[in-house]
Amino acid sequence: MDMLEQYLPFFTKLTPQQQAVLSQNTTRHTAKKGEIVHNGSLDCIGILILVRGQFRVFTLSEEGREITLYRLWERDICLLSASCMLNSIQFDVSVEAKKETEYWKIPASVYRKVMQQAAPMANYTGELLAARFSDVMWLMDQILYKRMDSRLAAFLLEESQLEGGRELKMTHEAIARHLGSAREVVTRMLKYFQSEGLVALSRGSVTISDETGLRKLAEESLR
Amino acid sequence: MDMLEQYLPFFTKLTPQQQAVLSQNTTRHTAKKGEIVHNGSLDCIGILILVRGQFRVFTLSEEGREITLYRLWERDICLLSASCMLNSIQFDVSVEAKKETEYWKIPASVYRKVMQQAAPMANYTGELLAARFSDVMWLMDQILYKRMDSRLAAFLLEESQLEGGRELKMTHEAIARHLGSAREVVTRMLKYFQSEGLVALSRGSVTISDETGLRKLAEESLR
Repeated sequence: MDMLEQYLPFFTKLTPQQQAVLSQNTTRHTAKKGEIVHNGSLDCIGILILVRGQFRVFTLSEEGREITLYRLWERDICLLSASCMLNSIQFDVSVEAKKETEYWKIPASVYRKVMQQAAPMANYTGELLAARFSDVMWLMDQILYKRMDSRLAAFLLEESQLEGGRELKMTHEAIARHLGSAREVVTRMLKYFQSEGLVALSRGSVTISDETGLRKLAEESLR
Repeated sequence: MDMLEQYLPFFTKLTPQQQAVLSQNTTRHTAKKGEIVHNGSLDCIGILILVRGQFRVFTLSEEGREITLYRLWERDICLLSASCMLNSIQFDVSVEAKKETEYWKIPASVYRKVMQQAAPMANYTGELLAARFSDVMWLMDQILYKRMDSRLAAFLLEESQLEGGRELKMTHEAIARHLGSAREVVTRMLKYFQSEGLVALSRGSVTISDETGLRKLAEESLR
């Protein structure tokens, strides 16, 4: 099962024995569209390596509200589904397959055991954690400081009313100018909206898919 | 300089050579109260190990609003002041000494170099990162899901515990910054608290009058 070599950049730096332990304990799975692959604190299934498909990683509040933290795509590694592996992780996320998704799974205990001996693996895993931490910091920054999510939602609704249609023929650059923001920020937030099913993006236009959802978001700025 | 052994749990698991590299490059510093020890993207000073005092780690938005992410105390290790060490960290924090603070500093490049060879060090650093990630996730949960009144109540109680008294010498502006909110919101809520007999307000300070009442309010978020 030397496929792991293709997905785990540190694999070739492990000893043959460490490689064997990982390979022998890796199993292949397929999740159906909409399937909850990992459910918060209820399980700790292990490290997931995406072969094909898409995972959505989200948190759920006590009141049942959820927020998407980030998405994982082909070749991405899902670490927080094995959060029991890290003693210091004190929050839970859930993972949903957004489409039919094939993935490899390495049990948390196996991954942890090898990682404790292998510096390249521990360092790579640290980088993965740092990347996800960065995703969450970006999201928090946008929501807290810029209210960029609600401002963008409000702007799209207002434009749609003015134009009398759900399709807005505007570049991201133009939207950014209206909001006093940067194009990159608007593009990233629009992609986030798209992944949440709020809008559909195509070349030179943004189409509103879920007006109610956008309105809810727009009104949150008035909290 | 074998004091590092007392502060870094992985130290004894390093080779004598690795220990020597760390020790020879560690320097002792003292920050004055209010001093900005690390300033966002402007520097990457290294790993800081607190000997005595308190650090406040915060982010700053483009508009100059700040929010406290977490605090560090004696024996804590400040990792994000060496964020250049991790390629995947794509956000900046600043670090302020809340009182006179003594700390050891290990340059980011030195720490990184040893960590790349030493599994125990890489694993411990991953745990540190996971702990800070957890702090931020907790904060995001507070902000996104919790009601403002209970957040303010929780904040006042926490500050009172930290400062060891019922009188908090803080402006509404400063409280708002800590909560990622606006001064007007905080002032209005504090006046409401005063009318409910929970606090007494005077110029530049807030005094807790009814700790039990505040605690009840703070715990309402747990509904």
